[in-house]
Amino acid sequence: MKLLIINGPNLNLLGTREPEIYGNRTFESYLMELREMLDGVELDYYQSNHEGDIIDALHEADCDGIILNAGAYTHTSLAIADAIKGIQVPVIEVHISNVASREPIRHVSMIGGVCQGTIAGFGLKSYFLAAQAFIIE
Amino acid sequence: MKLLIINGPNLNLLGTREPEIYGNRTFESYLMELREMLDGVELDYYQSNHEGDIIDALHEADCDGIILNAGAYTHTSLAIADAIKGIQVPVIEVHISNVASREPIRHVSMIGGVCQGTIAGFGLKSYFLAAQAFIIE
Amino acid sequence: MKLLIINGPNLNLLGTREPEIYGNRTFESYLMELREMLDGVELDYYQSNHEGDIIDALHEADCDGIILNAGAYTHTSLAIADAIKGIQVPVIEVHISNVASREPIRHVSMIGGVCQGTIAGFGLKSYFLAAQAFIIE
Amino acid sequence: MKLLIINGPNLNLLGTREPEIYGNRTFESYLMELREMLDGVELDYYQSNHEGDIIDALHEADCDGIILNAGAYTHTSLAIADAIKGIQVPVIEVHISNVASREPIRHVSMIGGVCQGTIAGFGLKSYFLAAQAFIIE
Amino acid sequence: MKLLIINGPNLNLLGTREPEIYGNRTFESYLMELREMLDGVELDYYQSNHEGDIIDALHEADCDGIILNAGAYTHTSLAIADAIKGIQVPVIEVHISNVASREPIRHVSMIGGVCQGTIAGFGLKSYFLAAQAFIIE
Amino acid sequence: MKLLIINGPNLNLLGTREPEIYGNRTFESYLMELREMLDGVELDYYQSNHEGDIIDALHEADCDGIILNAGAYTHTSLAIADAIKGIQVPVIEVHISNVASREPIRHVSMIGGVCQGTIAGFGLKSYFLAAQAFIIE
Amino acid sequence: MKLLIINGPNLNLLGTREPEIYGNRTFESYLMELREMLDGVELDYYQSNHEGDIIDALHEADCDGIILNAGAYTHTSLAIADAIKGIQVPVIEVHISNVASREPIRHVSMIGGVCQGTIAGFGLKSYFLAAQAFIIE
Amino acid sequence: MKLLIINGPNLNLLGTREPEIYGNRTFESYLMELREMLDGVELDYYQSNHEGDIIDALHEADCDGIILNAGAYTHTSLAIADAIKGIQVPVIEVHISNVASREPIRHVSMIGGVCQGTIAGFGLKSYFLAAQAFIIE
Amino acid sequence: MKLLIINGPNLNLLGTREPEIYGNRTFESYLMELREMLDGVELDYYQSNHEGDIIDALHEADCDGIILNAGAYTHTSLAIADAIKGIQVPVIEVHISNVASREPIRHVSMIGGVCQGTIAGFGLKSYFLAAQAFIIE
Amino acid sequence: MKLLIINGPNLNLLGTREPEIYGNRTFESYLMELREMLDGVELDYYQSNHEGDIIDALHEADCDGIILNAGAYTHTSLAIADAIKGIQVPVIEVHISNVASREPIRHVSMIGGVCQGTIAGFGLKSYFLAAQAFIIE
Amino acid sequence: MKLLIINGPNLNLLGTREPEIYGNRTFESYLMELREMLDGVELDYYQSNHEGDIIDALHEADCDGIILNAGAYTHTSLAIADAIKGIQVPVIEVHISNVASREPIRHVSMIGGVCQGTIAGFGLKSYFLAAQAFIIE
Amino acid sequence: MKLLIINGPNLNLLGTREPEIYGNRTFESYLMELREMLDGVELDYYQSNHEGDIIDALHEADCDGIILNAGAYTHTSLAIADAIKGIQVPVIEVHISNVASREPIRHVSMIGGVCQGTIAGFGLKSYFLAAQAFIIE
Repeated sequence: MKLLIINGPNLNLLGTREPEIYGNRTFESYLMELREMLDGVELDYYQSNHEGDIIDALHEADCDGIILNAGAYTHTSLAIADAIKGIQVPVIEVHISNVASREPIRHVSMIGGVCQGTIAGFGLKSYFLAAQAFIIE
Repeated sequence: MKLLIINGPNLNLLGTREPEIYGNRTFESYLMELREMLDGVELDYYQSNHEGDIIDALHEADCDGIILNAGAYTHTSLAIADAIKGIQVPVIEVHISNVASREPIRHVSMIGGVCQGTIAGFGLKSYFLAAQAFIIE
Repeated sequence: MKLLIINGPNLNLLGTREPEIYGNRTFESYLMELREMLDGVELDYYQSNHEGDIIDALHEADCDGIILNAGAYTHTSLAIADAIKGIQVPVIEVHISNVASREPIRHVSMIGGVCQGTIAGFGLKSYFLAAQAFIIE
Repeated sequence: MKLLIINGPNLNLLGTREPEIYGNRTFESYLMELREMLDGVELDYYQSNHEGDIIDALHEADCDGIILNAGAYTHTSLAIADAIKGIQVPVIEVHISNVASREPIRHVSMIGGVCQGTIAGFGLKSYFLAAQAFIIE
Repeated sequence: MKLLIINGPNLNLLGTREPEIYGNRTFESYLMELREMLDGVELDYYQSNHEGDIIDALHEADCDGIILNAGAYTHTSLAIADAIKGIQVPVIEVHISNVASREPIRHVSMIGGVCQGTIAGFGLKSYFLAAQAFIIE
Repeated sequence: MKLLIINGPNLNLLGTREPEIYGNRTFESYLMELREMLDGVELDYYQSNHEGDIIDALHEADCDGIILNAGAYTHTSLAIADAIKGIQVPVIEVHISNVASREPIRHVSMIGGVCQGTIAGFGLKSYFLAAQAFIIE
Repeated sequence: MKLLIINGPNLNLLGTREPEIYGNRTFESYLMELREMLDGVELDYYQSNHEGDIIDALHEADCDGIILNAGAYTHTSLAIADAIKGIQVPVIEVHISNVASREPIRHVSMIGGVCQGTIAGFGLKSYFLAAQAFIIE
Repeated sequence: MKLLIINGPNLNLLGTREPEIYGNRTFESYLMELREMLDGVELDYYQSNHEGDIIDALHEADCDGIILNAGAYTHTSLAIADAIKGIQVPVIEVHISNVASREPIRHVSMIGGVCQGTIAGFGLKSYFLAAQAFIIE
Repeated sequence: MKLLIINGPNLNLLGTREPEIYGNRTFESYLMELREMLDGVELDYYQSNHEGDIIDALHEADCDGIILNAGAYTHTSLAIADAIKGIQVPVIEVHISNVASREPIRHVSMIGGVCQGTIAGFGLKSYFLAAQAFIIE
Repeated sequence: MKLLIINGPNLNLLGTREPEIYGNRTFESYLMELREMLDGVELDYYQSNHEGDIIDALHEADCDGIILNAGAYTHTSLAIADAIKGIQVPVIEVHISNVASREPIRHVSMIGGVCQGTIAGFGLKSYFLAAQAFIIE
Repeated sequence: MKLLIINGPNLNLLGTREPEIYGNRTFESYLMELREMLDGVELDYYQSNHEGDIIDALHEADCDGIILNAGAYTHTSLAIADAIKGIQVPVIEVHISNVASREPIRHVSMIGGVCQGTIAGFGLKSYFLAAQAFIIE
Repeated sequence: MKLLIINGPNLNLLGTREPEIYGNRTFESYLMELREMLDGVELDYYQSNHEGDIIDALHEADCDGIILNAGAYTHTSLAIADAIKGIQVPVIEVHISNVASREPIRHVSMIGGVCQGTIAGFGLKSYFLAAQAFIIE
């Protein structure tokens, strides 16, 4: 099984950005641990702050499932939602923080409705759970 | 570790209710499988169609974590949200269907903001993932 | 033919509650007359002030049709709407008063869209008309 | 007893218009059956696609009750509502389809609040039930 | 000077329609008095319940000023507003009742912004005041 | 007959303030003309930029009618509306400009509903028409 | 091929009405040119200021396509939308002006969703383009 | 004089629930003190987390006044409001916290308008003040 | 203990203003009684119809507590709310009428959230209860 | 004449993306046909999923007209609207699908008001019609 | 050059009012420093808690520029906005705190649109920057 | 001191874009003057039409302060707001035009609340004032 993690804007700052919300571990550090936990799964990773890059990455994805943390674009990008609808690979929406407990604009996801499902609020563990959702029957 | 699953209104109908949305398996059948998958975890289960019963069950819960599918009360019950805030046991919100792809009233959760996190859209597998969220570090 | 009337919150007060809106006859008195008018129809009756009880009663209904006056829950209960969608027995929504001429919150029904139809504003006669809707071809 | 049925815009198309919603029987055919069912009742009928014609017809109505299916004008015509308030003859609002299960604009009636009551969702039978509402005590 | 009064829907019922709001005098009776009060002014009068008729009448008006009581169309007709903008003759909006003290839908006029001015709430005297507005310098 | 004109905020600037909307004549100059036109009427005048002063003036008014141009307070002052309701002297709302053709906030009057009527859009002539409304039967 | 152009309210004023928006050519003059441009196409034309007439014309249309400029009714008439849904002939919505650059009420079309498509903003050329849309494969 | 205190959902948790908002004293402890302070008053007490139970308790109340803290149901229960309207005993709405300083959903009370009055924000003292409101002339 | 009552706009009219809502007793008469009831409390009183005066009075208050009935400014004055936040003396919001049962604009208080608490609906007794709230422990 | 077609996000997927909405032909295939149909017109083409690229392309366009299908950015990009206002080349908005019949967010265009006009709902033919709009007088 | 600073409600409390937002320096102290920094500029100062006083001060201002911190009236006073439009002297809006980061009601300025510009969020330095905006070319 | 100016979409067009709003000077020309005025300050400059580029530039900024004119992204980009929150360097929001006097969508800034402050409406001088805000104590 081959999975692709796509991280959106500002997630490259993980570890230094608002640590009271996002914790103080870099994503790269977590990714190494995650690859170990998911033995037998090929796990690719892509990050960009550009909405268009994320759309391009979705179009070009050649894998069995995508784990997408679209960051702030979750709440503003109809174009990413259209990209998800336009491809065959299933997508799971993840969030590190519990978006429902933050500002109202983060309570509404423009992409959730076209994903397979949503996992939010478990810190970096959200990525592991999303991978599980693809892996287990 | 001891977990409690609380299912809200109409989830007793699983297996016959709107099978195109909720599938055609009873929750009891799934629960047996889930207990097998979660070896070493004590897994209690409670279902009620009564908002007050769910509040009572939350108050009385004596466990390490609660997996709550509040059904339609997710979208209308401030009282259940207050109950979650009022207790010490952490709660995870789960949904069988992808609520973000259904009617607009189901896009807003009144309880998500006071839970630890949310897992929605993976069918009955959502319960397994929630248990994982409690179990793994 | 077997029909079930379910009355929701505060309808047990009929006869004394806001008589300028609801009239001053008890429902029990009307029910006796209604049974006489509907010769050959088995007519069961259930009333509760509890949202959960109404959901339970809908789930357990074993009849050809349900006449539901959900009272104030008409305007606040997504859970009752889900219960109606979850069962096979057809449901007709009735109201004694003309809800469209009262406060704005009573202009919107959360359950009307999942019922077969709606009859409102004819006093207790609304129940008779609903029964007719089930009986005549 | 003398009743008048007024049908509004596009109801002249019954039988061919969106048959999955409105069925495939012409109103004229149903009217003949209805007159037979309502023995002893004089039943007049008027249809127009013009809002002004419906107002004129309400003003000139000389009967004991009006059964009004205002079609799309139900949701846009304050002028028809004013006409109903301006006359002495009682009016019952009917709809063939269950408007509460259709587009949001059809969930709000501008005329319901000034009618005696509303009957919606029973197909052509809605007219029979409205006549019953006038006839029975 | 030549003025035209155009009355919209239901104003033909003046004298019998909701007399607590509109009084119990017919417009024809008032019109005779008004013509006497406005000596030297040619005063034409037109009433229709049809939105299209009112537009036609505005298009064809050959006079120095129009006094328009568009009744309920005041609040729903963009087409009448467009007609007023499309002609050269100035139009004054009048209302018999104080629309600002009635239902919210009557607080917003779709035609007020394209009229010269508005006079509302003075009973039938509103027409006299509008005529004065045209006559005096 | 004794009438009182109350002018609200910024109306002391008439003649220099936004002349394309309000014209270039001072109110004092118009008042002299108005007194001549209204022979036999005692016409008092008060202007203030203070909401509280306008309330005080309404409370203390000892006359047969008040012509009130509350300026911007028309759209923001519930307190002035309460003052009008609290006194016995009838009040007519006037505006120099056609408020319905200006910014949306000026389309809603907080005081119109508690006045006898409204006259707007006729320039300074609005005051004369309001006086007429009090004088003629 | 036979096409029918239906023009709604105030479009009979083309050439004199708000020429800065609609230009100063009559529709009749343009129609002659259009017939020449569309050699081999039978082009009928109907205009009315009455909503009901437009519905009647839609019902009675016996042609291969309808080009509808519903004018202001575009934004207020659910009944015309229902008429379009109720017939078999395809309809194209056209506008002379760019409605998206005018007042907010003109940004929303009640009929666009039931037409085949929309062409707006090209002056009278919009009609030619709509005809092309029907003619070319 | 006989008074009944009804406490709604989660108020059984007083003393442990969100002590920074609700304090850390149990209601039972306060009730003993309150009974001493209100010498000569018979003071009954009922608590439930069930909306239906609160309605039942209101219906069955046999006393001179009810002090109701409906908790979260204050903001969601039209059925409790209807129950208050349906009985003869006067009801006073109380809140321990200052609901106006909390989340927006708590700023609107669905039951305040049908109670005699409201007392909010004084901690447990709110109950004493409500009793005073019943006792003093 | 020293308390200050501040009454806002139109409360000087108590006794004559809308007696069906506010009763027919002057505040001065009630104040005398209140001083007798609150033996040992120094009770100052200030009334103004000016928003700025109320702000000044709040700034200058030299006492242990302020009982503020801001009248209509309750619903429109952010400046008074800021004044309350800006001083050290605690403020209690009172209303004579039950504002929750009146027009929607009176359901929202701009100052409630920065006061210690709110007491509304008990007629003039509301002031006594507010004083009690300051006096009792 | 030289025209430039700019296609926005996800339009590179034409032919495979949601074929029930967008058809199953690639844009490149259509472009070849279009160039043949528009003999004598130089037709450039640019596609990007990046909002910034589309702005750059608009800035750099050196042609007589731009045919812009901004895809999902139509509904979210004020920056593209500003770019259109900032250049001299006229722009026509096109859509393949009938956006007015899809989700509500697609009913509002942020760029339509600054384009010359809009053509939507004719499949790929929309591009041909837009070109015609530029070519014919 | 002559400038006038006008400070609105509660700004007389600077130094003691909510020091975590507004700092703990009095405005008078800052004014002395500001006059030193702005050598060659005549700097007048006026403060009032009265909306009407601020309007009066704007009307009477005889200077080259006004620096206005309208405090809470920024968000509620259309009358002050009208006063700014009614005078010739240019006005700059300033705020000590960053209003965009506070409650939603403070995100909308009713006066910003009629000022020359806005400077907010720099503490007392905002006044210096506004003076610079007037002074430098 | 080292400052960075970041200009967003369409600001590269300064000098030619909508000169009635933005003036007719290029930013490069102004930048030269600005560097002269800010002797001793190192002033970097970056412009992009890409939202992602602006986020990247914010992340990579190595300076004492950022002056950000995000253009249209001011009103649509939550991602840029998150980037500002995610870095340590303080950011000041500037606008050339007075956004509060333009279309409503420009009245709300998504980034203002996370900046240090805002300066808008002073033409290119806004940049100088922002630099001053960083430089002076």
